[in-house]
Amino acid sequence: MPDPAAPAVREPRGYAKGAARREAIVDVATAFFARTGYRGATMLQIAAACGISRAGLLHHFPTKESLLEAVLARRDAVDGERAADGQEDPDGLAGLVHLLDLARRNAGVPAIVHLYAVLSAEAGDPEHPAHDYFVRRYARTRAALQASLERAAARGLLAPGVEPAALAVQVLALMDGLQVQWLLDPDGVDMAALLRDRVASCLTVPLPGG
Amino acid sequence: MPDPAAPAVREPRGYAKGAARREAIVDVATAFFARTGYRGATMLQIAAACGISRAGLLHHFPTKESLLEAVLARRDAVDGERAADGQEDPDGLAGLVHLLDLARRNAGVPAIVHLYAVLSAEAGDPEHPAHDYFVRRYARTRAALQASLERAAARGLLAPGVEPAALAVQVLALMDGLQVQWLLDPDGVDMAALLRDRVASCLTVPLPGG
Repeated sequence: MPDPAAPAVREPRGYAKGAARREAIVDVATAFFARTGYRGATMLQIAAACGISRAGLLHHFPTKESLLEAVLARRDAVDGERAADGQEDPDGLAGLVHLLDLARRNAGVPAIVHLYAVLSAEAGDPEHPAHDYFVRRYARTRAALQASLERAAARGLLAPGVEPAALAVQVLALMDGLQVQWLLDPDGVDMAALLRDRVASCLTVPLPGG
Repeated sequence: MPDPAAPAVREPRGYAKGAARREAIVDVATAFFARTGYRGATMLQIAAACGISRAGLLHHFPTKESLLEAVLARRDAVDGERAADGQEDPDGLAGLVHLLDLARRNAGVPAIVHLYAVLSAEAGDPEHPAHDYFVRRYARTRAALQASLERAAARGLLAPGVEPAALAVQVLALMDGLQVQWLLDPDGVDMAALLRDRVASCLTVPLPGG
């Protein structure tokens, strides 16, 4: 936080300052949710780590759910910007390369990877506040990947016997599972290489970019 | 619990009764850790759900860590009994079939699958009390699967280009990732079929058992 001692409840002198404070709180909450899970983190702990009072935190985020939504929404905004790069993708290969790039970049942000691993697992409980978010997120990501794979199949770029719908589920699952093993053994598991190896083995042409 | 009102601190009249009480507590803790994660569950909540006092719970399990160890140890004992069935396995196929059977059985115990998904993700934090447990568990499981795949390769049963060490990491990751998607969408994701499909596609012979 730029100014931990400032009392947040009467601080927002302007939109920019309030927005900066919110961003800083979302940073701290991201780290907390990654380390202790959504369920394990308390608003009091997060407020303390921000150097503000619980009331100050509640001024910006009235509930822990609203803070979780802000954490997830910011991450989606970051990923969304990057996904837009691959829109013109007639043979689907740009979509696959985008996913592999994401896996490579993830190796540089273990806290974010940890956050998603913990939250997506916790969210398997239908009563978890991020349950619907993750159900929608997987449905959307699977559909996008399946569409890329179908475009590749239409051009004869998928190996014989490879089924786009099944492969889309499997590739996302592989990506998630590799993250768990990588978090436990960062030097022993090269998640980007193992994902690339799997995707490349399903194609009849070399993957763009080596 | 067979007798929720009994004060646990002075209850163990015999080994069998104490052991039964411990088992019942481990049942309740398993459900709690699955639903809220290890970090999110409190000893007070678990005691209340067991119908005993916090002191009664601490009599059996002095710390939350010791309760977590008991939950994990019991699960390993169950899986270990089953794994021993596949010891005589000269071509490695029994080891693969064992893994696929496990995935099929997992579809019948969502609470256990959820427990492992949440705990293994939480344990990515080196300070999590189950961190070392999961590091060792994955190393052991990977080594066993790799050994099965190497025996299969030695008999020419692996498809060309399939590398046992890489495939062992990928198959375990696929299994874990499929569990996350299955928990979020039990009717839409057939984790056992998708895992079987992947393993079968790496072999030059049909998988035993259809």
